[in-house]
Amino acid sequence: MAQAAKRVLVLAGVGSTSGTGAATARRFAKERYHLALLSRHAPQLQALEDEISNSGGHVTTFPLRSYSYEDMSSAWDLIRETYGRPSYNIRAAIFNAGQSVFKPFMEITQDEIQQSLEVSVTSAFSFSREAISSFSQNEIEETSGKRGTLIFTGATASVRGNTLTSLLAAGKFGARALSQSLAKEFGQNNIHVAHVIIDGKILTERTRQAFSSKVDQFDTNQNIRLNPESVADAFAYLTNQDRSAWTWELDLRPAHERW
Amino acid sequence: MAQAAKRVLVLAGVGSTSGTGAATARRFAKERYHLALLSRHAPQLQALEDEISNSGGHVTTFPLRSYSYEDMSSAWDLIRETYGRPSYNIRAAIFNAGQSVFKPFMEITQDEIQQSLEVSVTSAFSFSREAISSFSQNEIEETSGKRGTLIFTGATASVRGNTLTSLLAAGKFGARALSQSLAKEFGQNNIHVAHVIIDGKILTERTRQAFSSKVDQFDTNQNIRLNPESVADAFAYLTNQDRSAWTWELDLRPAHERW
Amino acid sequence: MAQAAKRVLVLAGVGSTSGTGAATARRFAKERYHLALLSRHAPQLQALEDEISNSGGHVTTFPLRSYSYEDMSSAWDLIRETYGRPSYNIRAAIFNAGQSVFKPFMEITQDEIQQSLEVSVTSAFSFSREAISSFSQNEIEETSGKRGTLIFTGATASVRGNTLTSLLAAGKFGARALSQSLAKEFGQNNIHVAHVIIDGKILTERTRQAFSSKVDQFDTNQNIRLNPESVADAFAYLTNQDRSAWTWELDLRPAHERW
Amino acid sequence: MAQAAKRVLVLAGVGSTSGTGAATARRFAKERYHLALLSRHAPQLQALEDEISNSGGHVTTFPLRSYSYEDMSSAWDLIRETYGRPSYNIRAAIFNAGQSVFKPFMEITQDEIQQSLEVSVTSAFSFSREAISSFSQNEIEETSGKRGTLIFTGATASVRGNTLTSLLAAGKFGARALSQSLAKEFGQNNIHVAHVIIDGKILTERTRQAFSSKVDQFDTNQNIRLNPESVADAFAYLTNQDRSAWTWELDLRPAHERW
Repeated sequence: MAQAAKRVLVLAGVGSTSGTGAATARRFAKERYHLALLSRHAPQLQALEDEISNSGGHVTTFPLRSYSYEDMSSAWDLIRETYGRPSYNIRAAIFNAGQSVFKPFMEITQDEIQQSLEVSVTSAFSFSREAISSFSQNEIEETSGKRGTLIFTGATASVRGNTLTSLLAAGKFGARALSQSLAKEFGQNNIHVAHVIIDGKILTERTRQAFSSKVDQFDTNQNIRLNPESVADAFAYLTNQDRSAWTWELDLRPAHERW
Repeated sequence: MAQAAKRVLVLAGVGSTSGTGAATARRFAKERYHLALLSRHAPQLQALEDEISNSGGHVTTFPLRSYSYEDMSSAWDLIRETYGRPSYNIRAAIFNAGQSVFKPFMEITQDEIQQSLEVSVTSAFSFSREAISSFSQNEIEETSGKRGTLIFTGATASVRGNTLTSLLAAGKFGARALSQSLAKEFGQNNIHVAHVIIDGKILTERTRQAFSSKVDQFDTNQNIRLNPESVADAFAYLTNQDRSAWTWELDLRPAHERW
Repeated sequence: MAQAAKRVLVLAGVGSTSGTGAATARRFAKERYHLALLSRHAPQLQALEDEISNSGGHVTTFPLRSYSYEDMSSAWDLIRETYGRPSYNIRAAIFNAGQSVFKPFMEITQDEIQQSLEVSVTSAFSFSREAISSFSQNEIEETSGKRGTLIFTGATASVRGNTLTSLLAAGKFGARALSQSLAKEFGQNNIHVAHVIIDGKILTERTRQAFSSKVDQFDTNQNIRLNPESVADAFAYLTNQDRSAWTWELDLRPAHERW
Repeated sequence: MAQAAKRVLVLAGVGSTSGTGAATARRFAKERYHLALLSRHAPQLQALEDEISNSGGHVTTFPLRSYSYEDMSSAWDLIRETYGRPSYNIRAAIFNAGQSVFKPFMEITQDEIQQSLEVSVTSAFSFSREAISSFSQNEIEETSGKRGTLIFTGATASVRGNTLTSLLAAGKFGARALSQSLAKEFGQNNIHVAHVIIDGKILTERTRQAFSSKVDQFDTNQNIRLNPESVADAFAYLTNQDRSAWTWELDLRPAHERW
């Protein structure tokens, strides 16, 4: 019976054990999702797997060689082998991959353009195709009225091009367009597609090191940067929204962020 | 001690016992908020008060003569008398008032323009002023990191002017502008201002009667209209967001809505 | 014969002889429009009338007591008496009225709210109603394929609420909503409605005095503020666009403006 | 002397002799620009060159093998050889390339994704880099106050993702993001970057054949489709805007278009 199948979250973009990806993994593990984690960073992936497994979560990791279309598709083939029907149903998929390039336009190289479009757009197409293909085989869940939820992590650069963000914005606008198109095309099929605009810095080990000396109280002042756990809360809320009232897009920013 | 004060929600716009306002009242009553309910519809207000009181909720109602600036201000004076410090803290305020006018532009009367701007904009200014004034006296709540949350109910007409909606959109765009300005001005002060775009029909007693004969399965098919309870869930989620990652705007629509 | 009728521009909002309104009047006088100028500032109106008349233009002025719905309607009654059919056809109408209020939200008075909504929204409804009513009696002009063109002057506050602009933005968002609704409703009728977002300071006698001491080279450096004549060029371009490709909205800003 | 140099327009995307590209070439030839025309369609390019040369225009064509980054860069190298300083100044560049893919998401192939991103985004980066690099060597023109104008042709899909347009929109949103970033970064340098949203069908030989049997009066009714010449007018207007008031974005649609 479909209803009895274990729910699986596929999450791409776990850059470290302290970021949004990791917090999301922990959050969904608590909600008893089985996790398929994708990342180019095998050691971090392993560390997170160990941690979540040790606290009783169910997690399998899928290191990615790259964010190419094929590598993403291949990863999903492996995911479906691991989490096969009818025991498992992939019910949620979160595309959290990204690569921030802040550069004057004239300094951007051809290679950076290709890389950035691959991670932000091409890979998002591949990930979406696999997620929707999997969701389409699910029955509609009784409580939520959904076959599945697909969420994209966006940024300020998803809605505003700016000095230094021409490349980042090109990719992020592109992924946002994809998410809106998919929301419209697959809502009809009870597949929920959402886009979360993160407007501000997230506190991670990396940003802590980068900004603690520059920004006063960066790590302790919750008014000026986002907790990864709070972003994960938003992902969980979106995933739990029912079919009668779901969200395509919301923004998240710290209380004192200027915008 | 501020932390021990009872939390109060002020909610304007309870048009019936079956709509978003009523569902929101019930939802916040469950979260142990004391309720101050404002509406021009005294009988409905009374019915809702009875119902919530009977199930153990705490509620006081404040019938409005009109949505004029003064009537709104006066209502808040009474609210503050009822829910005085230090026993109570007004922590949430939801402006759910509205008046849908769908008319060819040339048929709109001067009186309708005044009425519509009064409800959608003038009254929203008055309500916001009182809410922010009250919030400003609150201490920052430890868990959420907020002094208070102010939410506006928007609509498709908040972001798109259309044939037949020139008047509705003028008011709704105006209230959205207000909410964005306030979010930016008072975020600095740990006051959270949010705007919810409802894109679709909400199932209420009124819409049930209006659409059940026209729209197949309007009352039973959750894919094609919003549950008031699901809208209330969004309001509760927004109110509970913490200071590190809060939302100015999200949209809500049924799975099969075309947009 | 309709085609032989003299073209009339009705322009509301001539605050001085050095602003956008005055530059627009001069520009359309050059294109041989007969002008109906509305303003609350009778002396400025008179000065502009004298100037344009002396250089061979045709202009009549209509001092407004206020931007109330009725005063605007009454002014149009007089305009139609002056520029009666079949000798004249009102072919263009530009709503350039406005009132900038930059204030912390808590300092905005009830009276300022009423005033601001009256000028930005109520009066825009009245002006639009009269313009569309007049245009509707025109035949479609052969070259442009239009009955008439209605243009609104917007601002940054038309699309972004900000600290200090809650009131300004509420009115400006409202007028923009109106313009979009009208564009959609009356495009079908070959009436062109457009909205111009001015993002930056316009060089006028007033701003020259206000900013010359604060902003280096404010009057001489064309990179940092708008020429009223260049805004008038945009209005002329929009008015001349043909039915196959017309614009609802464009933005105008100086080269060095940060946005 | 820079002022005496001949002005050059570089235009990419001349798909036929009846489209926007061709109309733009004719328009700028009339304004005495020397033309560098880029296209993958060598025969059409040749036909247009012959036509414009025969009517006294100055035009050189540069057939493109593909819209790859390198092929675009190489074409610009040739352009700069043909139109060398100090005799010539490249003053305008219009990126009109595009490739419309309307397909259900699940039918889009990996190859189509690559192709679409290459034409819409990668190539736009390459074209922009070359254009800005050339403009940067120009002196500021006295009348316009500019070094150069770079214009992108957008579409409805530049601002709305929709069923069937996930791929088209991903690329078009991306190019729009690029144009906004560039407008902000290079406005400081008196380089004007603009984006034109074309919302409707343009009358070309191709659309005439495709729609004449389906859409009543498609070729004769100017209310329902755009004239390429009117789009070219918009490009000319934008190019002639002066530094004090220039436009980043405008939309163009036929009078009776529903939107």
